[in-house]
Amino acid sequence: MKINSKPIRGTRDILPDEMLIRDYIEQTILDTYRRYGFNRIETPALENLELLLGSEGGENLKMLFTILKRGEKLDLTKDNQSFKDICDIGLRYDLTLPLSRFFSNNKEDLELPFKSIQIGNVFRAERPQKGRFRSFKQCDIDIIGEPSEVAEIELINTTTKALKAINFNDFTVRINDRRILSSLIEAAGFNTTDVANICITLDKLDKIGAEGIRNELLNKKYEEDKIDKFINQINDLTLKNLCDTSVEKHVRDAIENVINVITSLSNSSYNIVFDPTLVRGMGYYTGLIFEIEYGPYGFAIAGGGRYDDLIGKFSKQSVPAVGFSIGFERIVHIIKEEKFNIGNSKNRVAILYNKDDDIVRVIEKSDEFRKQGHNVSLILSKKKIGKQINQLASMNYKFFMIFGRDNELREFTEGA
Amino acid sequence: MKINSKPIRGTRDILPDEMLIRDYIEQTILDTYRRYGFNRIETPALENLELLLGSEGGENLKMLFTILKRGEKLDLTKDNQSFKDICDIGLRYDLTLPLSRFFSNNKEDLELPFKSIQIGNVFRAERPQKGRFRSFKQCDIDIIGEPSEVAEIELINTTTKALKAINFNDFTVRINDRRILSSLIEAAGFNTTDVANICITLDKLDKIGAEGIRNELLNKKYEEDKIDKFINQINDLTLKNLCDTSVEKHVRDAIENVINVITSLSNSSYNIVFDPTLVRGMGYYTGLIFEIEYGPYGFAIAGGGRYDDLIGKFSKQSVPAVGFSIGFERIVHIIKEEKFNIGNSKNRVAILYNKDDDIVRVIEKSDEFRKQGHNVSLILSKKKIGKQINQLASMNYKFFMIFGRDNELREFTEGA
Repeated sequence: MKINSKPIRGTRDILPDEMLIRDYIEQTILDTYRRYGFNRIETPALENLELLLGSEGGENLKMLFTILKRGEKLDLTKDNQSFKDICDIGLRYDLTLPLSRFFSNNKEDLELPFKSIQIGNVFRAERPQKGRFRSFKQCDIDIIGEPSEVAEIELINTTTKALKAINFNDFTVRINDRRILSSLIEAAGFNTTDVANICITLDKLDKIGAEGIRNELLNKKYEEDKIDKFINQINDLTLKNLCDTSVEKHVRDAIENVINVITSLSNSSYNIVFDPTLVRGMGYYTGLIFEIEYGPYGFAIAGGGRYDDLIGKFSKQSVPAVGFSIGFERIVHIIKEEKFNIGNSKNRVAILYNKDDDIVRVIEKSDEFRKQGHNVSLILSKKKIGKQINQLASMNYKFFMIFGRDNELREFTEGA
Repeated sequence: MKINSKPIRGTRDILPDEMLIRDYIEQTILDTYRRYGFNRIETPALENLELLLGSEGGENLKMLFTILKRGEKLDLTKDNQSFKDICDIGLRYDLTLPLSRFFSNNKEDLELPFKSIQIGNVFRAERPQKGRFRSFKQCDIDIIGEPSEVAEIELINTTTKALKAINFNDFTVRINDRRILSSLIEAAGFNTTDVANICITLDKLDKIGAEGIRNELLNKKYEEDKIDKFINQINDLTLKNLCDTSVEKHVRDAIENVINVITSLSNSSYNIVFDPTLVRGMGYYTGLIFEIEYGPYGFAIAGGGRYDDLIGKFSKQSVPAVGFSIGFERIVHIIKEEKFNIGNSKNRVAILYNKDDDIVRVIEKSDEFRKQGHNVSLILSKKKIGKQINQLASMNYKFFMIFGRDNELREFTEGA
């Protein structure tokens, strides 16, 4: 019987060439994060279903993978059960909720401010489409316990350094603040309760443009004059304008935060700009939000923000927190597309041996070259050795040695 | 409301100190594997439930985590449904079955023999007990497409080199062959159909001793004379004895394989011995099986064997394969217990700054030290700076600098 050997829908197998790229990116980013004083932690991919369902995960909650109860806990004979009755575990949809749980569970053993690194897979049962997977890697740094914008500055400085370390240069950091966004929406005449709904529409600006935003808000039955006032307001809005017109303290604080962050990082070799239209999807953001856009592609390769209220749900006390996440899969996609020169400097070496050769000596010889830093494979030689040599050359081997005949490594250009 | 912040039963959070150890082990093992000509691949943690259930996973199939169907595919209103009706996905319980599927799915793009590396988490809903987790990391190398024992020799040579690279030295490699084991059981008078059942008992030899084996086989209603014959036979059995007495070709082949492997690796700096009592749990092994026992602990830290029939279930053609898996969690456990000296050579540096300091210059100064290879954290200074310095010293920081006062890094021994 032949069994289906495809991976499940929305997932994929990763082959050796891409794994070399992925390992190089992950290692380089991790090294940079650690140099900037962050510490890696890990949480399980499985979390309590109740915890996940009670979170502000927005659309992600509709895309949960849930795990059936086991043993005596599972009773499938009862009527009218929902998935909540028969499942007790879910797969994590991001790394921020698990981090909040982790911090609360382990805070006695952690330094404050706690600067964490998380690199791991998350799972979302999305409708599969090109470039989107149901299991994908995220790469997050977070600072917990630092109320000032030094946290945002450190996160942006570290993330941009990590991107530069993997040869990304042409990018722009866009910054906004949830408090500014809310005040602009309210200043146009909308109610506080409309803010979330209007943000959902505004988040699509990149895709549908200002006219699209206008139409969608009209369809949502908002009044035309408020919509137009709002759209005019965000066009050509500058921080100076805002400063001159805002009177509420929390908005003035927000503006000062944004200005401090931009000023502190203005010596950097990339653009950093205020963008009043930046939304970021997650419901838990409370202050500064930011995104990094990679020039030629026009989509975000990293994003984050401040979420001062999330951790308080686990502990009784409120704890300030900010996070920044690199979209690992998008980075890999761009590096593969643009054929970035990444550092795989190891030479592949083929040692060709015969069935009759003394395998002890073949291994000793191979180990010598391995000690010199080569990646060495033992390969049984075929009758048509010339043809075999040509095949190996096409498989990115750099050197070869026919055991018992050659005394040293030969380059493939020489032929057999 | 306070939410439970513990990770789910049988899983755990991993803190920064352990993550440093884990990352070091993983990176060192991975580097060694690559130097020995292996290539890393990755498969999803989620697999088709049908595929998992149809595999020879033995006890592991009772410990599957299964994922509920989603959307229209899920119908909870029907009567008499089993988990197979309402679930379509399972979490992988090992890396060998996914590798077999991977090979079949991608074989056109792979070199033969294909030498794979897999490092990833697997999931088993075991009854939680000390040192056993429901989500844990495995670290496998496999050679697919090599029928001769050169595959076994390469796997054992590579795995032992990886263990030495992380400072494991005092270990023993034990080797047996499924064909020898079967022939010994049959030679004692048991039926071929009894082999699997007797192996399950024999596998417990380490724990219950020869007398325990005898009692368990008696309880299983086997005849006393056969049991005693079998136990006498495996006591003091040598390869030479076996050679002199075995007549069947497949047993003589097996003996020759074992002798070749032991001879080829006899120059190595560890013990390698034939152990006729070695069983290994998995049902899919067909030939040589092997295990590495770490001296002071007396338990296996790595194990593997030949499984020539597994891949054939996916493709129409039979493909020879051998694998060797390092028990990552056991390695971590031993390294933590024995406080191995692992290579975390980076110095932690604390830059203490004031709210009034020019944050641009603080960052510039920190980046200088990062370029020199230090791990640098910015830390807001407190009023009682002497006390703060002492705290930082206890948190493994090696150097500090009070911004605006010091011109260079100072060691903590100096005090503030």
